[in-house]
Amino acid sequence: MGGEHPVPCTLNPVPCTLFSMPRTPALFCLLLLALAPRLPAQAPTEAAAASAAHDYTTAHRDDLIQAFSHFLSMPNVAADPDGLHRNAAFLLDQLRQRGAQAQLLTDPAQPAAPAVVYGEIRTPGAEHTIVFYAHYDGQPVTPSDWQIPPFSPEVHSVDGEARIYARSAGDDKAAIFAQLTALDALRAAHIPLRANIRFVWEGEEEAGSPHLEAILDAHRDLIHGDDVWLVCDGPVDQSGAQTVVFGARGDTHLSITVYGPHHGLHSGHYGNWAPNPAMELAQLLAGMKDANGHVLIPHFYDGIAPLSPMEKAALARAPYNDPMLMQSFWLGHTENAPRHLLELLNEPSLNINGLSSGATGAHAANVIPPTATADLDLRLVVGNDWQRQQQNVIDYVRAQGYFIVDTEPTQQILTSHPRVAMIVRDPASYNAVRTPMDLPMAQEVIAAVQSAATEEHRGDVVLLPTMGGSVPLGAMERASGTHTITVPIANYDDNQHAANENLRLANLWNGTATMAALLTMQ
Amino acid sequence: MGGEHPVPCTLNPVPCTLFSMPRTPALFCLLLLALAPRLPAQAPTEAAAASAAHDYTTAHRDDLIQAFSHFLSMPNVAADPDGLHRNAAFLLDQLRQRGAQAQLLTDPAQPAAPAVVYGEIRTPGAEHTIVFYAHYDGQPVTPSDWQIPPFSPEVHSVDGEARIYARSAGDDKAAIFAQLTALDALRAAHIPLRANIRFVWEGEEEAGSPHLEAILDAHRDLIHGDDVWLVCDGPVDQSGAQTVVFGARGDTHLSITVYGPHHGLHSGHYGNWAPNPAMELAQLLAGMKDANGHVLIPHFYDGIAPLSPMEKAALARAPYNDPMLMQSFWLGHTENAPRHLLELLNEPSLNINGLSSGATGAHAANVIPPTATADLDLRLVVGNDWQRQQQNVIDYVRAQGYFIVDTEPTQQILTSHPRVAMIVRDPASYNAVRTPMDLPMAQEVIAAVQSAATEEHRGDVVLLPTMGGSVPLGAMERASGTHTITVPIANYDDNQHAANENLRLANLWNGTATMAALLTMQ
Repeated sequence: MGGEHPVPCTLNPVPCTLFSMPRTPALFCLLLLALAPRLPAQAPTEAAAASAAHDYTTAHRDDLIQAFSHFLSMPNVAADPDGLHRNAAFLLDQLRQRGAQAQLLTDPAQPAAPAVVYGEIRTPGAEHTIVFYAHYDGQPVTPSDWQIPPFSPEVHSVDGEARIYARSAGDDKAAIFAQLTALDALRAAHIPLRANIRFVWEGEEEAGSPHLEAILDAHRDLIHGDDVWLVCDGPVDQSGAQTVVFGARGDTHLSITVYGPHHGLHSGHYGNWAPNPAMELAQLLAGMKDANGHVLIPHFYDGIAPLSPMEKAALARAPYNDPMLMQSFWLGHTENAPRHLLELLNEPSLNINGLSSGATGAHAANVIPPTATADLDLRLVVGNDWQRQQQNVIDYVRAQGYFIVDTEPTQQILTSHPRVAMIVRDPASYNAVRTPMDLPMAQEVIAAVQSAATEEHRGDVVLLPTMGGSVPLGAMERASGTHTITVPIANYDDNQHAANENLRLANLWNGTATMAALLTMQ
Repeated sequence: MGGEHPVPCTLNPVPCTLFSMPRTPALFCLLLLALAPRLPAQAPTEAAAASAAHDYTTAHRDDLIQAFSHFLSMPNVAADPDGLHRNAAFLLDQLRQRGAQAQLLTDPAQPAAPAVVYGEIRTPGAEHTIVFYAHYDGQPVTPSDWQIPPFSPEVHSVDGEARIYARSAGDDKAAIFAQLTALDALRAAHIPLRANIRFVWEGEEEAGSPHLEAILDAHRDLIHGDDVWLVCDGPVDQSGAQTVVFGARGDTHLSITVYGPHHGLHSGHYGNWAPNPAMELAQLLAGMKDANGHVLIPHFYDGIAPLSPMEKAALARAPYNDPMLMQSFWLGHTENAPRHLLELLNEPSLNINGLSSGATGAHAANVIPPTATADLDLRLVVGNDWQRQQQNVIDYVRAQGYFIVDTEPTQQILTSHPRVAMIVRDPASYNAVRTPMDLPMAQEVIAAVQSAATEEHRGDVVLLPTMGGSVPLGAMERASGTHTITVPIANYDDNQHAANENLRLANLWNGTATMAALLTMQ
């Protein structure tokens, strides 16, 4: 990377070479950043690469859809290790076909855990090394919730836009496929790479990346000397504009189970005497937030690192999509109103991913259920520690009069405490990371993405301090000793993590152009 | 029934003929009732019948277990109308084999709804007619929760007691099988019936008896002139003693669904902005009860008919099983403590039968779920009206700021109200009924049950004003113009309505003796 691309500045008729000024005064950077998205692309090679990729994907559209469908048809959920291995083997072959030195990297302590697919393309004379991170695993699926089988991809037109439906269409096979296709496009157009390129494609991101750091640590020789990790995951801004994100929230989970009778009891014969765990769980959860969605658990918001003036300015410039999103998601109100989505993503969150107790609907029976369970998802921002945040929730539950256990309680435990909660901490957790926007490398990545920006969005690029979702940036930064910058390509409305996940094909083509531009950075 | 069985009274050495005094002063009745369970059986024919039944079931134990298993192996859930029909056809044949005039009765307006199996045995010269009600349908099953398939009965020894496991083993095929077996035992012992006997075996009790009253109304000629309906359903007292119950709680249900985003959203990208329906449902439910289980919904306890002094005295005499039950059910506290179970069953209740939102455990995903649903079970006592009680809950939800709908809300409805709840009322509901304990027929039933009381419980019979569970007594009373008295036979710990339902075989044998005694009432 590095280099000195002259950036014309509308405030200053004299071209200013931002990247030669590592200690650019903050105010100047702020002004420049605030204007950067309005500037035309200033990276000629990258712009040519993006243009070549557009030509390539336009010419080979049907073949590419077929190839992407083949990739998406390979089941990739944590419950199916063989399926994950088939994905890894497929990608290994894809990289080798494109001339990469490729191998599967595993955790020596847990060799059966899903492997990282690693590949390297060395560029003679290159001074810099760029790593492209993505992940090939997907969230669990509940096929009955889907309109198509989740691993039988189909293209459908929605409001005149073609979309491909399958698990991982958006999160995150799109990024991997775009990178592979970008390599093909560059070769077809005879545009050479200028940096060394490495690919790190993980197989456990949706499981919380429990082995990523150990795998990287065990293979430090393969990732030494990286200049930047480009994390290709998540959605672009809801406006559809290309987006560069400088961090991601951390993530941790807790499962809370409370107890009623040892087995389901007749709700007539024992109702209003035997404690109902569904009601007790409801009362426990209800106290965790106020009616407006503000978390009431003590210390939940402690220690948060404030946003810098540059980050605040970037947020202030970002599109305000909330009313459009409320309509799109059929929402009549939002939490923490009147504050905006992009602002709220810079705070920790508490979400219930699932509730279960007894059964509802056709399977409902007149019972007092034996247990009630809630799965909680806690997102973290810089300044939160995931173990401390788990403990804040546990301390809250204890303060409500619960005896806490971490394994199924015995009869003796249940009968000797008025209330018992089993809380299981998810060890596959990590903290948030945020890369300063004023680093030179940050400016270069912005320029490359800018070169692939579409006319549809008037060449705008959205800059965000923090992505709401989580990727294990910390593990990457610790292992590689460098910074991460996130460049997503998926549409925001891709049903990521839910049923009927999909990708706008236009995002795949634009994303391929973005990857081509990033691949040709110097 | 009727007749004048002399009942020795320990307070009075002169035999007193209680049943010839229809207007017995309340205090005298109270004293007598309070002592009745201690008295020896005073119904010689009934005692002989009970003894003959004991001999018969002892002699034919293996054949009877096999025959009961055959009956239990016939699926009998509402979702399987063919299975219910096979049960009805089987029972029709069983009644005819025993000389009953039998037929299937259906609702003329809904002929496809599960039929009532009706049978009549006319006794020449009989002055009275006794109806035996039971039901052949069972609660829904979730086979994955069972240790055996729910319709593949198995006998297992638990703490030295043989139990048979299958759906409806206790609720309520046991009662039907006991009645059929009691007829066989009486025939084998040449003990004649003295009253006309009718059987009314319903196929929709677990669905709330939506057609029972219409079926009975359409066949009034078959049930005219009944003297009493004996409702054979539910469990005996937890002490194991034979039990006579003079009423049952009514029952109604509501399903409440609240709404988040239209489809599952990524809990990172939208967490603490998109409303979480699981949290909002928790907050809605949490306010329905205080921490001790007292219902906070306005007017929930309005209009309750107080217990009579005789009913209070019966309750005061009933066994105090709460500490034993808490140990048995692994409970560390109870709702509405320090009040006792049997007292609380005379109040209305609110129970959550099931909660669901998103998924927990292996299927959990990092989403903000689109909906959250709770199924509520409301039990009612005399003085409550089921429609009014439903409305009390709906009014409460509305008072929490929800716009109420009764069908799936549209985008327009959801986006134009901050909060929307769909509340579906269950129309298959009914009110509570309580028969006064001082009616002459009540005393005769007590005496007959008393004649079958076992030595194990020192000949005690437990008398309760109200059963916690619900049976559609009101429909029976309205259609037949007479009173109902409930005589259960199942063990309390039969997992009724839940997985691994079972019946202590000792309860089947004792229950057969009880049925034999009741069948030979005059």
